[in-house]
Amino acid sequence: MILGNQVEWALHCVMILASAPKGKLLNSKALADFHGVPKEYLSKCLQMLSQAGLVKTTTGPYGGYSLAKAPAEISFLDVVEAVEGKTKTFKCNEIRRNNPCLAKSDRKFTKLCDIAKVMHEADEAWRRSLRERKLSDITNYLADGVSKETISNFTEWLEEN
Amino acid sequence: MILGNQVEWALHCVMILASAPKGKLLNSKALADFHGVPKEYLSKCLQMLSQAGLVKTTTGPYGGYSLAKAPAEISFLDVVEAVEGKTKTFKCNEIRRNNPCLAKSDRKFTKLCDIAKVMHEADEAWRRSLRERKLSDITNYLADGVSKETISNFTEWLEEN
Repeated sequence: MILGNQVEWALHCVMILASAPKGKLLNSKALADFHGVPKEYLSKCLQMLSQAGLVKTTTGPYGGYSLAKAPAEISFLDVVEAVEGKTKTFKCNEIRRNNPCLAKSDRKFTKLCDIAKVMHEADEAWRRSLRERKLSDITNYLADGVSKETISNFTEWLEEN
Repeated sequence: MILGNQVEWALHCVMILASAPKGKLLNSKALADFHGVPKEYLSKCLQMLSQAGLVKTTTGPYGGYSLAKAPAEISFLDVVEAVEGKTKTFKCNEIRRNNPCLAKSDRKFTKLCDIAKVMHEADEAWRRSLRERKLSDITNYLADGVSKETISNFTEWLEEN
């Protein structure tokens, strides 16, 4: 069970947008170049973030993406679910219904299967952990431990893009 | 991100083995019939449980599977990892290394990426939840809320298989 690469791309994109000065717009080409990922696939990913209300798009020749909310209001779960959807990680196919020993009167299952219950609890533990962490928890995303040269390159890059 | 069906099959199989009288062996055909799943695929799943040391195989015409440990010593995580492996749910492809602004001196990354850190924490929350739940936590797996007829059918089925 592994999340798609697009989750990683989406998280890095929102972190770049969170690290850029307020009002700065970055288009999909700039974001793709910055992360070394294919623009066509990244565009789809950015559209999903937009549909989920996490980023907003400004059109026009100098248009691009910016965060739609403050970094403290965007959780990791918001980003993961925007890309991967909200489907639970365990799909219960109700194979208990195939049990050949079941009397007719016992074939109506109203309670959730105990196995699915445990699996869904774990799913919720995963989501809770991601819900508790906000983009703002990652401070100094681009400047942490890097040289002045990198920071100055980034400032320049922002001016050019 | 969804777990494969085999996780559901594996969990139901170990619960049946945990519910059967001590020493009872069930072969893959019986377990496949009971759950209405294809025997060939279920066999592979049972082999994985065996490789992980959760079930043991007794060969011969009356051979079959039994639990290799007490139900209180087998966690849901043991079963899930036996089938799905231990690979983390988030794969960090280190796309931060593609950042064109990085000065040469900043290209050696020793610390884990902050994004991967958050994602791995959530993965561990999921595993922790599954690790805390043992097969023995599910009591009355087959007898809970069912009629005497079903219970008697199951006793009969165990004798026949």
